[in-house]
Order: sequence, then C-alpha cells, then structure tokens
Amino acid sequence: MTDQTDYVPPKVWAWNPGNGGQFANINRPTSGATHEKELPVGEHPLQLYSLATPNGQKVTILLEELLAAGHPGAEYDAWLIRINEGDQFGSGFVAINPNSKIPALVDRSGPAPIRVFESGAILVYLAEKFGAFLPTDPAKRAETLSWLFWQMSAGPFLGGGFGHFYAYAPTKIEYAIDRYAMEVKRQLDVLDKRLADHRFLVGDDYTIADMAVWPWYGGLVQGKIYGDSAEFLQVADYKNLRRWTDEIAARPAVQRGRIVNRATGDPAEQLRERHDASDFELRTQDKLEPAA
Amino acid sequence: MTDQTDYVPPKVWAWNPGNGGQFANINRPTSGATHEKELPVGEHPLQLYSLATPNGQKVTILLEELLAAGHPGAEYDAWLIRINEGDQFGSGFVAINPNSKIPALVDRSGPAPIRVFESGAILVYLAEKFGAFLPTDPAKRAETLSWLFWQMSAGPFLGGGFGHFYAYAPTKIEYAIDRYAMEVKRQLDVLDKRLADHRFLVGDDYTIADMAVWPWYGGLVQGKIYGDSAEFLQVADYKNLRRWTDEIAARPAVQRGRIVNRATGDPAEQLRERHDASDFELRTQDKLEPAA
Repeated sequence: MTDQTDYVPPKVWAWNPGNGGQFANINRPTSGATHEKELPVGEHPLQLYSLATPNGQKVTILLEELLAAGHPGAEYDAWLIRINEGDQFGSGFVAINPNSKIPALVDRSGPAPIRVFESGAILVYLAEKFGAFLPTDPAKRAETLSWLFWQMSAGPFLGGGFGHFYAYAPTKIEYAIDRYAMEVKRQLDVLDKRLADHRFLVGDDYTIADMAVWPWYGGLVQGKIYGDSAEFLQVADYKNLRRWTDEIAARPAVQRGRIVNRATGDPAEQLRERHDASDFELRTQDKLEPAA
Repeated sequence: MTDQTDYVPPKVWAWNPGNGGQFANINRPTSGATHEKELPVGEHPLQLYSLATPNGQKVTILLEELLAAGHPGAEYDAWLIRINEGDQFGSGFVAINPNSKIPALVDRSGPAPIRVFESGAILVYLAEKFGAFLPTDPAKRAETLSWLFWQMSAGPFLGGGFGHFYAYAPTKIEYAIDRYAMEVKRQLDVLDKRLADHRFLVGDDYTIADMAVWPWYGGLVQGKIYGDSAEFLQVADYKNLRRWTDEIAARPAVQRGRIVNRATGDPAEQLRERHDASDFELRTQDKLEPAA
C-alpha cells in the first residue's frame, strides 16, 4: 500500500473544516437549520423537495409510475433543493427532514400535512398509499422489503464509500478505494446472480425494490456515475444486471422520473421543477424551438 | 493531513486479498455460497440465523418485546452464525440471504416458508405480522418508517465507515477517520435534537425505529462499540440521547434481546443460542451455580 501513515488519532476528535474534499462546505458535525427559509407549496396533494441524485430519482420514478398506472392522486409538485448551495439547511426543509438530506415529501391530502423523509420510507409510504408496486402477498412483500432495505444499507458503500474515495476525496487513498471497490463488486455480483433467473428483483413483479436499486446500480452499469468507474469496476461483466437495467431504462415513466429536479448536465435531461405532466413536453418544445 | 499519497488507481481494479485489515478473510468481491451446509431448524415458527452485532440485536430485541407484549406466535429459535468463520457463506444461509449478512429470518408458520433478510426488513415484517411497534395511524407510521430508514442509511457511515477506519483498518488514515467522525457526530446531534422534545423517536410510541437505532447509537453512547470512541466522539455531550438510551436499556426485553446469539465477551452476557424463554434463566443459573 502507498498510504501507510504514522497518524495517531487524538483523544478527542476536533473539527477541521478544511479537511473534507468536494462537498466539504456542506458537511458539518452538527445538525439543524442554519437560516430561516420557508418552503414553497404548490397546488397538488404531494409536495416533493428533492434533487435528481440517485436517491432523488427513486421517488420521482415511483411518482411517474403511479401516474402512468392510473393514480391521479399521485400528482405532485417537485421543488429543487440545491444541496451545494445549502438549501437543505433552511428552516422549512429541516422541519420536514431534520437530517437535512434529499428527498423529503409532504403529503397534504389529509386533514394535516404528513412529512416523510428518507427515500426508502417515501417509497413504502407512497406504495402503501396507492396500493401499487409493493405486493400484499406475504412472501412477495417480504422479498420486496428485503431487497428494498438491501439497497438502503448497500447504497452508502457505493455512494458514501466508493464514489467518495474514487471520485471526490482530495487525494486517492488506495486502501479506501480498494475496500469499497471490492464491496461494490460484491454487491454487483449479488444483483447479477439474483437477476440471472428473475426478471425483476422480486420475480415477475416490478416493485419499489427495483425503483430503489436502479438509479444507483443501473446508473453505475450505464456509466452515468463516478466518471470512469464503469471501466474500473468492469461493470460490463454483469450481464443479467445490464439486461435488467436496460429493460427498466426503456420505461417511459422512468425516463420522465430520472430527469425531474435535475439542474446540471445536458439541458435535454433537465427538468428543474415539475408541477404538471405537460412540463415534460414543454421542456422538449423549448429545446426544439429555442427563444428567438 | 498525514495521508497525502501519490497513488493513481489503475484502469481496472484488481483484487488484492491481503489488503483488507481485520475481517479481510471474510470480505470478497464476489457473492454466493463457498460450501454446502444446511441450516438447522428448530420447533418454533420463526427461525432466526444471526449474531449479536448491533444489526442482530435489533431483531432479537423486537422478538423479546413481542413475546413480552403477549404474542406467543413470536416464539423463535435463534441460531448462531459465526461470521468470522464464514458460516454466512454456507449454501443454506445463502439460500435465505443471497447477500451473506446477518440477520436472516425464516417464517415457517404458513403453508410455505418465507425468507426475510436485512434487519430493517425483518423489523417491518414482524411488526406487521403481529400488529405491534409500527403504528397504523398514517402520520405516525410515516414517522416510524422515516426514522427506521434513517438508521438503515446512516448506520453504514457509523459501522462500515467510522468503526472500520477508527478501530479495524490496518493503518490509521486521518482523512477517513475525520470524514466519518464528523458524520457520526452529525448523526448523534440529529438524534439528540429529536429526543430533546420526544420521549421516543416517533413521540410517545416506542417503535421499531427505536429498536433499530438503539443497538448502534445507544451502544456508542454506552461505550460498548469501537474501543474508546465514546471519548473520541464526546458522546457524553448528547444528553437527550443518553436519557433515551438509558430508558430503553432498562427494559427487560431489551436486556434479553441484546445477549441472544452473543458468543464472545463476558459469559454473563452470552446466550449463544435461544430456543426457549427459560434459556435466559438457565444461563443465569449456570453462572450462579457453576458445575462442580
């Protein structure tokens, strides 16, 4: 290894704000609001405050799938939370997610607003509310929950671990990259073996487990996250996972959901806010007919 | 920083089996069974295959709480999975959890066995099966799911991140320790602020969210995990979290649940397998009346 050190941790940890790599400006050892700021509220029952990271995409994909499946109660306003500008530390956002992470949802369809935070909790909440994409058969439901929670506990090794040390940390630390590359390869193999003889993670049913896993592991297989990590991790080897990734990527609701609250990159893949189904068409029109 | 390196990752990652620190022998870049081994099956409807890590404790605490609350259908056999000896790679275990992690559960009460893996999924499955510790009121249910999923996505930063780099990695890497110490401090502050004006995470109701969070963050506050990390992270500062930790620690079901499938440390805190409620008393008797 090239990262042998003689570092000895102090008795008591102390914060060095300069020591965080990319995103250092939004990471802190404390929680809570840093400034007063109310959240906007639109006309629909569901108000989503998010960003098109893989965790954000999970929820917008489910919402678009619900609408496509004929659940008009799933109409939503999607508001942009710019995490690099600290929107998640505004008082209004902290009131609906004390953990200051996207996505966060408020359901205003009942007598009092209900808040839900953590992408996995939002998926279960919406799936139960509309009775869709979460089987009620006990065995299938157990399998869906197992794979959903699998993603929630595996994801931090991909995102907070591999992605951070491979793409964002200020130096390349061999031990850390090696640790997380091995774990992500193992996770990819878990998925690939499962999908060798199952169309979707739970079987024949397309569920919220697929919607949770696809933005992360499908994104990795498609080469959409963490630079050249697709080659580094040799993702082409996972043929069953690629087949599943492509099948889900072809779904119109997924194609809509993945661009909601996206504010960077290719303008054709951006829909910064979503307030109506027609917003997707307007976006295309804007692209085809730029303002004179 | 003392861990500046000139390491340049290769184009394609390659496994170096010697490069893993403690637990290197059980971490691999592939999944699946390494050997044929059936799992034992006891007489109760619920068969648990686990170890008393924080993730394992979540489930045994819930099972003991369910029994204490008058749900005899929650009787269970708890079998020891020695992860340092590779039990999780046996064919029988992989068949119930293709991810090869503890805990894993098989419910044999119905016409066909149902498998559930991931501690969070098992908590939801059992809470729904017995109608306990997961509120049905929509707002409370949403809050329970939010905090439950919060633990699932926060935990890997405490366990796989902070714990690994602070206690287990072969060298002390300042950047990694610093990164994860800051995040764990933030998580502790999130909990402490929430518990400042709520008895339990969801409010007045003791739920599976508390049972998921307590073994990790309560364990940290009690100084039970990762050596002297309680001092390093100054956990004594989080007074509301300590109050909550102590209240839950005093529950008899928690005191039983946390020692099930424990195979190391103080013999008074070990119950390697659990097959009957009387196993707890027998353990105490053994201690009081050692064999002549």
